[in-house]
Amino acid sequence: MFQQIIKASERLSGFSHKTPILTSSTLNNFIGTEVFFKCENFQRIGAFKFRGAFNCISQLSKKEKTQGVIAFSSGNHAQAVALVGKLLGIKTTIVMPNNSPKVKLDATKGYGANIVLYDTETENREVITQKLQDKFGYSLIAPFDDKYVIAGQGTVAYEFLNKVPDLDTLLVPCGGGGLLSGSAIATKHLNPNCQVIGIEPELADDAKQSFKSGKIVTIPVSKTIADGTRTTSLGRLTFPLIQQYVDNITTTSEKAIIDAVKFHLLRMKIVVEPSGALGLAALLSKAVKAQGKIGVIISGGNIDPSTLIEVLKNNQQKTNKY
Amino acid sequence: MFQQIIKASERLSGFSHKTPILTSSTLNNFIGTEVFFKCENFQRIGAFKFRGAFNCISQLSKKEKTQGVIAFSSGNHAQAVALVGKLLGIKTTIVMPNNSPKVKLDATKGYGANIVLYDTETENREVITQKLQDKFGYSLIAPFDDKYVIAGQGTVAYEFLNKVPDLDTLLVPCGGGGLLSGSAIATKHLNPNCQVIGIEPELADDAKQSFKSGKIVTIPVSKTIADGTRTTSLGRLTFPLIQQYVDNITTTSEKAIIDAVKFHLLRMKIVVEPSGALGLAALLSKAVKAQGKIGVIISGGNIDPSTLIEVLKNNQQKTNKY
Repeated sequence: MFQQIIKASERLSGFSHKTPILTSSTLNNFIGTEVFFKCENFQRIGAFKFRGAFNCISQLSKKEKTQGVIAFSSGNHAQAVALVGKLLGIKTTIVMPNNSPKVKLDATKGYGANIVLYDTETENREVITQKLQDKFGYSLIAPFDDKYVIAGQGTVAYEFLNKVPDLDTLLVPCGGGGLLSGSAIATKHLNPNCQVIGIEPELADDAKQSFKSGKIVTIPVSKTIADGTRTTSLGRLTFPLIQQYVDNITTTSEKAIIDAVKFHLLRMKIVVEPSGALGLAALLSKAVKAQGKIGVIISGGNIDPSTLIEVLKNNQQKTNKY
Repeated sequence: MFQQIIKASERLSGFSHKTPILTSSTLNNFIGTEVFFKCENFQRIGAFKFRGAFNCISQLSKKEKTQGVIAFSSGNHAQAVALVGKLLGIKTTIVMPNNSPKVKLDATKGYGANIVLYDTETENREVITQKLQDKFGYSLIAPFDDKYVIAGQGTVAYEFLNKVPDLDTLLVPCGGGGLLSGSAIATKHLNPNCQVIGIEPELADDAKQSFKSGKIVTIPVSKTIADGTRTTSLGRLTFPLIQQYVDNITTTSEKAIIDAVKFHLLRMKIVVEPSGALGLAALLSKAVKAQGKIGVIISGGNIDPSTLIEVLKNNQQKTNKY
């Protein structure tokens, strides 16, 4: 798999951004150790998902590329697939809920994707997608449970460790586990001593449950503010990779996530979506001990203005103490 | 003066951040040219002011350092002087309005500064400051009209042009003119073909008036949202430097400034204060023509949560078109 990550990195060259790594003196002084943030909120479409989608779509056969690709998502994966299609001249179809925010529909349409809306109450997106695949021969681009997607996401840690090789700990947000498994593979190959810890919300702790119990646990759709981690279970490919390469999975409260988004915003001057702030949330709430050289992957920055306003209004005095 | 900027850069080494330079594919596609942003919102205390304050204070004599420094400011300069004092072990006194936001008072106190409050209705900060200087021998650290401060601010463009040498145009926010004059000197020495343009709000266009008329024009305190540019006139040192090294000064509307803050926030995922967004505002509103390779200095990112909320609520559909 590590060779696949190197190949993905070569494919992505010139297409993805080599995102910056930021530090914060304020944070380092506050928690008493050095923290490095790999900022995928500055990636194309505002999240790491571009990497996996690009790596997956670019290795399709000529015939598959001509027939087009399909994905179902209302989030970052939809925009990632749509943009990759635009860049590579491949027709893309995205199946989205008919109650998706206009901003997201517009953004996805803006990349030239064909949008198919469905009613979440009465229709099933898998069934709709399968019908379209049967009819038009579209290739399905999975959001996380695909070896090319996993290898693409692994380039985040690959770039990170190449710049900061001596990390003692790497904190990675966990939804379906594509970013976590890919990043863990890259990390353990480049620096086997670096502990890789997956972070998920307490309200969506399926990965922690799976990791502890040794089998894939499925939970109901969570209401966590960290919308990128509302996936109900790890994947058949991502779970065994996480078992093999990840050292631990821990959780953070909703309050810690909101505090972390605010800290990123007001102290570090960067916009981070709630799922992307899980690493900092774990540090600020002491779910992960602040010791050694810590790397944090910020997975994305796509937060609705209304959520941003809620975060800013929430608990206004709180983060001043940092 | 250019030699002073090189010396300032050496003094700052290890103390100031070498702030990153960011680009946005979305913006480049939208306006049809390449734009590079030098991000002083990621500088220590969240603004370029750290550079000038550090350069100025670090060259004081041993006796002056022992006696301490004083500044009057409710903004970024106050925090800059306070932090430099803390780093260099120098006593700092900051004269601030008694109606300053608690967040700013706390931040300045947090760096260990001694705060002297005054009533803006009945007291004069210059008089208070002079009395304290007479009594304790404090050295006054001017916010912009000082050769060491100007040289310190000039290191922003010095770093920028060393990374991106072939800029055709450089856009610099203008308040008292410290950043603009220093950056213009550095730019014209490193790349004489690069046009340097100062940007200020229409509501605070004293620098434009001065530049056109050839004499320093003073205006009443402006109510522009770009609080860092509410200075009522250029300085006796900054004005002739601007006349000599700057190619033009242009203005932007309040609406353009708000749109630019929103674009930085929602599209580029960075927090920029209104004064810091003047360069992008000039590009988005076409006050400056988008051609060639454009450099933009983002001066800072210290925006109150309440202002951020106002910006996010304002005109919600507008920036979607970009």
